Amino acid sequence: MRMRRKPWAEKEIKENPDFVVPNPEEWKGRWHHFFGNDQAIHIEIGSGKGQFIVNMAKTYPHINFIGIEIQTSVLAVAVRKLKLAKEEFSLSNICLIRENAARLKEVFASQEVERIYLNFSDPWPKRRHAKRRLTHPAFLDVYSSIIKRPGEIHLKTDNEAFFEYSLNSFADYGCRLRNISFNLHESDFENNIMTEYEEKFAQLGKKIYRCEAIML
Amino acid sequence: MRMRRKPWAEKEIKENPDFVVPNPEEWKGRWHHFFGNDQAIHIEIGSGKGQFIVNMAKTYPHINFIGIEIQTSVLAVAVRKLKLAKEEFSLSNICLIRENAARLKEVFASQEVERIYLNFSDPWPKRRHAKRRLTHPAFLDVYSSIIKRPGEIHLKTDNEAFFEYSLNSFADYGCRLRNISFNLHESDFENNIMTEYEEKFAQLGKKIYRCEAIML
Repeated sequence: MRMRRKPWAEKEIKENPDFVVPNPEEWKGRWHHFFGNDQAIHIEIGSGKGQFIVNMAKTYPHINFIGIEIQTSVLAVAVRKLKLAKEEFSLSNICLIRENAARLKEVFASQEVERIYLNFSDPWPKRRHAKRRLTHPAFLDVYSSIIKRPGEIHLKTDNEAFFEYSLNSFADYGCRLRNISFNLHESDFENNIMTEYEEKFAQLGKKIYRCEAIML
Repeated sequence: MRMRRKPWAEKEIKENPDFVVPNPEEWKGRWHHFFGNDQAIHIEIGSGKGQFIVNMAKTYPHINFIGIEIQTSVLAVAVRKLKLAKEEFSLSNICLIRENAARLKEVFASQEVERIYLNFSDPWPKRRHAKRRLTHPAFLDVYSSIIKRPGEIHLKTDNEAFFEYSLNSFADYGCRLRNISFNLHESDFENNIMTEYEEKFAQLGKKIYRCEAIML
């Protein structure tokens, strides 16, 4: 999921504080104030180039969306995408933040987030890198500390081994699993909003796995 | 999983009441008495030709095993297999019954069974046949009424769609899932005892799916 370093990326982010919130930890416990409403807050961890989160914001105006991305180059692409979308539609329910998933407790208060999206997260296939997987119990601890109960984690991936790992990790953590799909695009699931990668994979006929884990 | 009708099958079963218990409902609530010990009772629903349950009985002498099969022809093959095994080893911890899964409440009392094995059950792929799948909620109701808490259901299948259906059915029923494997023979799972079908599939390099569902 790495892309070549973009020299303009840092500037793009810095110059657009309306799109990429500069010091997100300052809004901890006050995100409803940030958005100026009481709508539920859904976050995407690893929002990449932003197609999913921007389209979600367009489709569900009554939800507030926060895209979280640590890689400067892809985040900058998301900024441009969001800018275009905001010119076309008046979107007041979305922002991006440059942050590490492990640090989300510094950014969100307990129960501040209602839903977490994990889309095509890096599978970190080597066993010694398991701790880096976004469904490792150490990350579930982070999600547990910010998510409202019952809170939902929605996961999509094209990587079968990562999907298998994640199902077990969720189940072992005590999450209730729901809507497990081994082939999302052949399933009954409606209103699927695709990421950039998902579109590419789907065109190649690759299977997309999906599940929801409920933190009770 | 159907095999050609065997004209000798009915006779084989009738003549071996020590192997195929004739009126199993008469032992309801008294299976420990039947086995003459207090060992845990594990059942296999759809025990087919019996390789799995016979090998389990050999491997785990401190568990009582009951193989349940409704098809006369395959059950008769299991009888012959069990007979051979009993001649070689002195197995007192296994029997077979000819019974329908839907009727297990007539055969077992509440909490009488500690574990249920479902191996390569008929996937009934057509949606209108979903009620016949052994992981349909109607069957989970039956298992729920006879299984000790926490009770375990161990499932293996080579059918991905049936596996996906079963995971969802278990989760929706409130079971805790555990040890989900998308490729059993490539996994860390040890002490796997194979069924006849599983051996064939494994030789062909086909993937075997497995999971455990805990009824709490």
